[in-house]
Amino acid sequence: MPQLGLLPGRAWTVLLGLLRPPPGALCIRAVRSHSQGTRDLSPQQMVVREKILDVVVSCFKRHGAKGLDTPAFELKEILTEKYGEDSGLIYDLKDQGGELLSLRYDLTVPFARYLAMNKVKKMKRYHVGKVWRRESPTIVQGRYREFYQCDFDIAGQFDPMIPDAECLKIMCEILSGLHLGDFLIKVSDRRILDGIFAVCGVPESKFHAICSSVDKLDKISWKDVRHEMVVKKGLAPEVADRIGDYVQCHGGISLVEQMFQDPRLSQNKQALEGLGDLKLLFEYLTLFGVAEKVSFDLSLARGLDYYTGVIYEAVLLQTPVHAEEEPLNMGSVAAGGRYDGLVGMFDPRGHKVPCVGLSIGVERIFSIVEQRIKTFGEKIRTTETQVFVATPQKNFLQERLKLIAELWDAGIKAELMYKNNPKLLPQLHYCENMGIPLVVIIGEQELKEGVIKLRSVASREEVAIKRENLVAEIQKRLSES
Amino acid sequence: MPQLGLLPGRAWTVLLGLLRPPPGALCIRAVRSHSQGTRDLSPQQMVVREKILDVVVSCFKRHGAKGLDTPAFELKEILTEKYGEDSGLIYDLKDQGGELLSLRYDLTVPFARYLAMNKVKKMKRYHVGKVWRRESPTIVQGRYREFYQCDFDIAGQFDPMIPDAECLKIMCEILSGLHLGDFLIKVSDRRILDGIFAVCGVPESKFHAICSSVDKLDKISWKDVRHEMVVKKGLAPEVADRIGDYVQCHGGISLVEQMFQDPRLSQNKQALEGLGDLKLLFEYLTLFGVAEKVSFDLSLARGLDYYTGVIYEAVLLQTPVHAEEEPLNMGSVAAGGRYDGLVGMFDPRGHKVPCVGLSIGVERIFSIVEQRIKTFGEKIRTTETQVFVATPQKNFLQERLKLIAELWDAGIKAELMYKNNPKLLPQLHYCENMGIPLVVIIGEQELKEGVIKLRSVASREEVAIKRENLVAEIQKRLSES
Repeated sequence: MPQLGLLPGRAWTVLLGLLRPPPGALCIRAVRSHSQGTRDLSPQQMVVREKILDVVVSCFKRHGAKGLDTPAFELKEILTEKYGEDSGLIYDLKDQGGELLSLRYDLTVPFARYLAMNKVKKMKRYHVGKVWRRESPTIVQGRYREFYQCDFDIAGQFDPMIPDAECLKIMCEILSGLHLGDFLIKVSDRRILDGIFAVCGVPESKFHAICSSVDKLDKISWKDVRHEMVVKKGLAPEVADRIGDYVQCHGGISLVEQMFQDPRLSQNKQALEGLGDLKLLFEYLTLFGVAEKVSFDLSLARGLDYYTGVIYEAVLLQTPVHAEEEPLNMGSVAAGGRYDGLVGMFDPRGHKVPCVGLSIGVERIFSIVEQRIKTFGEKIRTTETQVFVATPQKNFLQERLKLIAELWDAGIKAELMYKNNPKLLPQLHYCENMGIPLVVIIGEQELKEGVIKLRSVASREEVAIKRENLVAEIQKRLSES
Repeated sequence: MPQLGLLPGRAWTVLLGLLRPPPGALCIRAVRSHSQGTRDLSPQQMVVREKILDVVVSCFKRHGAKGLDTPAFELKEILTEKYGEDSGLIYDLKDQGGELLSLRYDLTVPFARYLAMNKVKKMKRYHVGKVWRRESPTIVQGRYREFYQCDFDIAGQFDPMIPDAECLKIMCEILSGLHLGDFLIKVSDRRILDGIFAVCGVPESKFHAICSSVDKLDKISWKDVRHEMVVKKGLAPEVADRIGDYVQCHGGISLVEQMFQDPRLSQNKQALEGLGDLKLLFEYLTLFGVAEKVSFDLSLARGLDYYTGVIYEAVLLQTPVHAEEEPLNMGSVAAGGRYDGLVGMFDPRGHKVPCVGLSIGVERIFSIVEQRIKTFGEKIRTTETQVFVATPQKNFLQERLKLIAELWDAGIKAELMYKNNPKLLPQLHYCENMGIPLVVIIGEQELKEGVIKLRSVASREEVAIKRENLVAEIQKRLSES
């Protein structure tokens, strides 16, 4: 089967355009493509995805999370005013009479809506599902208009930083479990960033604009960010320089201590609260054995409006493949933070439910793993078939059908060729191509003697087994392998 | 947590309306509801769903199917002219610039589009995913505007009726595996139905209208169907009576033989082809050991336009709960058929790929199983937590955090209370409520002696275990249970 699932929609349009009959031909059809920025997942990709999601979901369940599912679309009003500048990326449904609907943009807002609607005050949930964003798709980076998110969130009023530390522990477990190479989790706090802006003299009206400039520090240099602040956003140069002193700092718990001593920042109440929480966080991360994976990074800003406290973002530290290859800039592979105000926005009386959570960027992880598989030429089995039912002779369809039904009924994964009189060689080739380990062969000789031939595809060894012992023998072999 | 996930959207609107502050109050918010005809799946429902999907997907994999995923939306033109009268139920996306898109209506059309687009001539695939239809939701029957479909299809040119028989075998395996009580699969063939219409004297222009009348025979009596045919659709009464003689017949292989002898029907080439295939089908079903579950039913019509050969539909024969209860009319729980022309509609040159497949109506099955759980008061665990880390004393958070990280790192599913100084009783109550089997307890005494107390929640027995042996002991206990 052609492996073209990763081609962008536009390439398909061109490709299929070439194949179309000329205008006026009898059979004029529209371009048979999928929509731009989306893709089909081929069986190979599905296997990779299933393995990755299994690591992620196992970890969520290890931490006691319950599953939850919400509809693909929400009432439009649920999503408005939650995503700041990015609201233009929301897909709306056509007004066909009835309610105005939009496809969900993330899994966090539907979770908050669920909590408020059901008056749930406490919940640890995970959700794996698709979300949709009208972005210009830059597919090389693993960005699509439809993609999976894997979210874990803890809602409820608890003693400070215990759930927050668990979220970071979960990120470490998942990134280690996926063997993506070394990684680092940058952590900061919205209150510290706001405190820095305040003590540096940023006018409050410019907090948001300056925050979004800081957010670019992982892509462009401080010099360029400073230029943007001063020239584009009208900040006084000395204010920008003061910010620069801060946001270029990163380190561990010692940087937290240093900031506590900072003569200006230590005057800001919000910043002190954030620093106090970060100190506690590092204490817990040390107990969890993951503190060395976490860096306090004052350049971390995170775009979304709804964060209110600690924020974090995991980045891979090296390319996962050979050193001599072009490094892939995969951006962050996991992120999250605390959002204590979002649920209250959906509650008629504004009752708040504090929340903290994380989202695993599985699409980027898919891309990395797919790239690695391509590089190493790894072969992936797309089926789990254990036994193939074959015959070397004509007129054995009836026997094959009876036999395979017996295997299926015993829970054995089995296939046969949908032909009345297949030749033996293509049947054996199919097993080799598909990685099927066992073949049972039935022919005239076997039927007469009441036996079946059992063949190992790898060793090509064949043994005759009594028909009535076949299922037991296959189950024994499968349990040993 | 309140179990309100099944309330229809309208009930929510009313309920939340009552809770909203009066107009003019400071905090006026929109109704915080989900959209009509959709629902959230609560953790309890997610567990039920996961178990049902596991039975379904395991069966698909046992039959050698590969996984495939397609986007939630397709180009609008892909879906047009595929669903006959039901096309009005398709959800369109708003035109926000770019392509015209629609949410997928089933998984069959995207599969056919995938095959044509990738020039795949042969494929056995399964697909579990959501589809969307703008129906007036009648939630009591398990019908929603967003729902899951589980599809298995075999594409390719093969010897007749072998894949078709496998599809029916799969339906039997799944319905038996889900323990839904007795069931029956009705089978017929589009060509036989067309043949009957032809020999009874239905004008070809009325085939479609008369077919849709026949389709109602599982809901209304023949008398009412006949009335509709004659009065509403203008069929001659004697033609209707001739049809009635046929469509009230159902039986096994013997009815196929009887129809072969039928003086009128045996003159129709199409009908003879269909009958020949059904005869072969019953032969294979006998070899598969499922023939007694299948009935040749001439009243079966199936709405969708794209079927070209054998069609089938599985119905439950009795309510799954006690006999004295109101019987639930759940309609069909699985259906499918052969569609040899659909792929060709997407191929620029019209190349055909014959297909046959089935769809499991999991939403109805969810409803039945949920109903049964409610009736029997069955308790469902919504988490898989194996161990709870507790303390009877103050100031043991550090020890608890170190301990639980050790458990997580050993792959043990563990939870603790997010409190600095929790009381012991609520910790133990939580375990009983959540069905967590083991508790490890650490306090001053244990810390001094280098031991941990391990408590079985069911028996309330406690033993002291050396700290360094704890993980091994827990793993031993979990593997035994």
